[in-house]
Amino acid sequence: VDRAVRLGDLVARFGGRLESSAGGENSSGDPAATRVTGFASLAEAGPGQMSFLANPRYRKDVPATRAEAVLIRQSDADALRAASPPPSAVLWLCDNPYATFARVAQALQDLVRVAPAPGLAPGAQVAPDAQLGADASIGPGAVIGAGCVIGARTQIGAGCVLGAGVHIGADSLLYPRVVVYDACVLGARAIVHAGAVIGADGFGFARDGAAWVKIPQTGRVVIGDDVEIGANTTIDRGALADTVIGDGVKLDNQIQIGHNVRIGAHTAMAACVGIAGSATVGARCTVGGGAIILGHLKVADDVNISAASVVTHSLHQPGHYTGFYPIGDNAAWEKSAAVLKRLPELRTRLRRLEQGVAAAASSSAGPAAAPPPSDATTDKP
Amino acid sequence: VDRAVRLGDLVARFGGRLESSAGGENSSGDPAATRVTGFASLAEAGPGQMSFLANPRYRKDVPATRAEAVLIRQSDADALRAASPPPSAVLWLCDNPYATFARVAQALQDLVRVAPAPGLAPGAQVAPDAQLGADASIGPGAVIGAGCVIGARTQIGAGCVLGAGVHIGADSLLYPRVVVYDACVLGARAIVHAGAVIGADGFGFARDGAAWVKIPQTGRVVIGDDVEIGANTTIDRGALADTVIGDGVKLDNQIQIGHNVRIGAHTAMAACVGIAGSATVGARCTVGGGAIILGHLKVADDVNISAASVVTHSLHQPGHYTGFYPIGDNAAWEKSAAVLKRLPELRTRLRRLEQGVAAAASSSAGPAAAPPPSDATTDKP
Amino acid sequence: VDRAVRLGDLVARFGGRLESSAGGENSSGDPAATRVTGFASLAEAGPGQMSFLANPRYRKDVPATRAEAVLIRQSDADALRAASPPPSAVLWLCDNPYATFARVAQALQDLVRVAPAPGLAPGAQVAPDAQLGADASIGPGAVIGAGCVIGARTQIGAGCVLGAGVHIGADSLLYPRVVVYDACVLGARAIVHAGAVIGADGFGFARDGAAWVKIPQTGRVVIGDDVEIGANTTIDRGALADTVIGDGVKLDNQIQIGHNVRIGAHTAMAACVGIAGSATVGARCTVGGGAIILGHLKVADDVNISAASVVTHSLHQPGHYTGFYPIGDNAAWEKSAAVLKRLPELRTRLRRLEQGVAAAASSSAGPAAAPPPSDATTDKP
Repeated sequence: VDRAVRLGDLVARFGGRLESSAGGENSSGDPAATRVTGFASLAEAGPGQMSFLANPRYRKDVPATRAEAVLIRQSDADALRAASPPPSAVLWLCDNPYATFARVAQALQDLVRVAPAPGLAPGAQVAPDAQLGADASIGPGAVIGAGCVIGARTQIGAGCVLGAGVHIGADSLLYPRVVVYDACVLGARAIVHAGAVIGADGFGFARDGAAWVKIPQTGRVVIGDDVEIGANTTIDRGALADTVIGDGVKLDNQIQIGHNVRIGAHTAMAACVGIAGSATVGARCTVGGGAIILGHLKVADDVNISAASVVTHSLHQPGHYTGFYPIGDNAAWEKSAAVLKRLPELRTRLRRLEQGVAAAASSSAGPAAAPPPSDATTDKP
Repeated sequence: VDRAVRLGDLVARFGGRLESSAGGENSSGDPAATRVTGFASLAEAGPGQMSFLANPRYRKDVPATRAEAVLIRQSDADALRAASPPPSAVLWLCDNPYATFARVAQALQDLVRVAPAPGLAPGAQVAPDAQLGADASIGPGAVIGAGCVIGARTQIGAGCVLGAGVHIGADSLLYPRVVVYDACVLGARAIVHAGAVIGADGFGFARDGAAWVKIPQTGRVVIGDDVEIGANTTIDRGALADTVIGDGVKLDNQIQIGHNVRIGAHTAMAACVGIAGSATVGARCTVGGGAIILGHLKVADDVNISAASVVTHSLHQPGHYTGFYPIGDNAAWEKSAAVLKRLPELRTRLRRLEQGVAAAASSSAGPAAAPPPSDATTDKP
Repeated sequence: VDRAVRLGDLVARFGGRLESSAGGENSSGDPAATRVTGFASLAEAGPGQMSFLANPRYRKDVPATRAEAVLIRQSDADALRAASPPPSAVLWLCDNPYATFARVAQALQDLVRVAPAPGLAPGAQVAPDAQLGADASIGPGAVIGAGCVIGARTQIGAGCVLGAGVHIGADSLLYPRVVVYDACVLGARAIVHAGAVIGADGFGFARDGAAWVKIPQTGRVVIGDDVEIGANTTIDRGALADTVIGDGVKLDNQIQIGHNVRIGAHTAMAACVGIAGSATVGARCTVGGGAIILGHLKVADDVNISAASVVTHSLHQPGHYTGFYPIGDNAAWEKSAAVLKRLPELRTRLRRLEQGVAAAASSSAGPAAAPPPSDATTDKP
């Protein structure tokens, strides 16, 4: 199969315009006729490959690239035109080269991706009353429970297990060994990676003496459209109400979402994040890897939380929040961590010293010395 | 199916007593005859639903609730009787409304839960010498190894894999895709969520030059009765001895328990906790999400560890322990984290200043000045 | 089956030499004829068992052990010979008792391990063009995709799913329910524990307004020889280039390796570590449990990172690095964490005090007072 695509066809589909540099080596004639098959970095691209310039820092790599074409902003192209030598690659001018790269790369990948045959693979088991949309496919050994509704063209991978009454929208893709518990809902164009578990019980127990009594978790997980869920990520079902994941949310691997959590649209979380029960995270937030948000907190829209930070109080304002111990040489850490524990004492000694010095100054120099700043009142970590 | 249950029948089973408020709207006649189907929060409950008052803070929501009945302590009911208007719901007086809610909700859930048919589902594979208890069920595609013993009424979910010689007690429930390695033991009434892995090798290697030589992990995992294990949680088998999980332990999702760990009865751990090899955790402890306990440490009974804290030394006394960097605005964190690294230097400067001031005071004012407090000796993080 | 092995045969295979203590109780005649079946600790070993002395701290346990034989260094044996009573066990003198223990224990375990029958178990599905090496075995319900190449004697566990074009070397062992995505490569003698996911998409999205556009992840995961991968660990495929794991790398459970990460040979990582995208970790490093390495950083060879530490800048020198908040009593933590946030202010006050005292000293005692140390310039966390 020749999977090379004409640049002109891609531009017609994704927008922007082509510009062939004067004197470029491989701009023989019509740039729209150049054929490409995929992407590589500016430094590594070769014949038949495209590249992109998203970060102006790499602008100096454009003239030397052997890529056939480079997705680039007008401003970067203008700066390059002034430079010498001019780039030999075709320049594909567009507003957002990185997003256009993503879209074009998707289109090229779709050309070579082999979709499984529609219908049931050997060993798949589908409940008699489950509904499969047109061209949906159920992989080998997958199990689809009673009353499930699977959208058109949705692919359920090998060994997936869907409980009773699960609804999944159209054009979704579950990789192998995903488990979705009873009654959970996924939207259209979902991508769920292997080993993810959606709808397991939230962690709810009532204390009764020394023992714990399980609280049935009777809510669901309800997931919007265009959500991606990483490998081995777990999203718990709600206790009484539902756990809700908004449209366009992107969750990396090994994330844990507790019961009754709500996550706003287009929020993205890196791997190993943990969100405790009943927390609400706004829209368009980013959460760095390994960060933790404690239960029942509210995080506003447009909040960015750094990796490894622990959110212990609600964050009502957009902004960038951080909190982790800075790494250092182990011996230096041992010293600073030891002093850290004595910080309240150091502060007391500092205050005492300030008062002593102020008193001495006031007795020797009169009433001019200012009182030391107060700091003892409303400390909260 | 009419799954509504008479309040009187529930009270007969779970204890407490019913009290109908004078003048209540829906207390028409005998409160024991009121029929209910499930629970909701005080604010959201409607006809046919019960609710509960566990936290006196929400007492003000009781008069307005549309719940048919409210589980409540005598003391809260007394306080409400003084208020006006009196609650219209039937009050179900009991000692521990939250635990009673949990038990009643379980009973109501059992009424609607559809147990799988006993025996082997299509595609299940059971070794000829494995023993299945009465009414045990083995889900589609599950694999039961040689010599396994499965208790009565225990349900093994779709795609579960049990190695050779695994023992599981009665009335247990393994959700889909749980893996239990050879020779591991689970007690009665276990609940294990999807993707959990019990009995994988502990992380044991001997160094030999630059390379690592694997140390066979020949112990087992031995789990008591009434244990719940969350989705994608992993519990490693012991190296020479066993890894042991006590009765009534509750483990949330994505927890990692290393080899030879021992966890005491009724200890509960939130998601993403990691317990390193050979650590011993006492009974009735709680461990917050993302906390880490390092290897070979001992944690006493009745210890509470906050989320995201790192236990680096044994905790011999019951109590509440915490250690993580407080989150803040990123710019503020950058400043405080930078100074943190210079904390030992700041302490030295403070001490020097104290000594200078004391010396100046002593030379000008005589021998009255006290020496500064000593702080240089036994610092340990 | 008699699985007891003569000590003499083991020494011939693994090196070292046997020495029977004068007057030992069970050294009847030829120590090489002693037969053993396995290992236990010095304190717990009984008849037929061996033990080892790796840490000289436990040397005092050797005389009393009931083990048949003890792997021991010459220097420890010499020290014991001076002690009284002399050990009754046979001493197996070798250079590295812990590594020899590991190798001998492996050999003993191999004697009792039951390998699955070669070929396909019931329910296994193998693509017609996949190649299986001699005596390779495919477990119940496992799915092997088109064009896969499986090495000789390699065992694929129940329910594993291998995508198209996966290559796995000889003598490897995949436990149940491992997923390997298309085109990924594992070397010889790999051990992969249950639930691991190799080759899921890296977390790559381009922002386009509020939404995210997925960047296809077209690289592979390429894993060297002698690598062990823990339960539920995830290793993402590269975006454009590959994710590369070197020979002899050991990864514990629930580790997350992002796209385009490179890990050098013989590096070992404890459970719950997260390595963000495009980070490069050197050879022979160790990373403690729960540590995080941020994206695009470089960690040199022979670096040791403590548990729970967050690597936020490249570590170019070998050494031991640490950074986490020391745990303490919760009340003490609340105080120190509160002061921590005011650390920049405390430093300012200290500096002001130093300047005031220096000025006072200089005005009263002349020009001898030194200026306070400067600290305000290049702080970075």
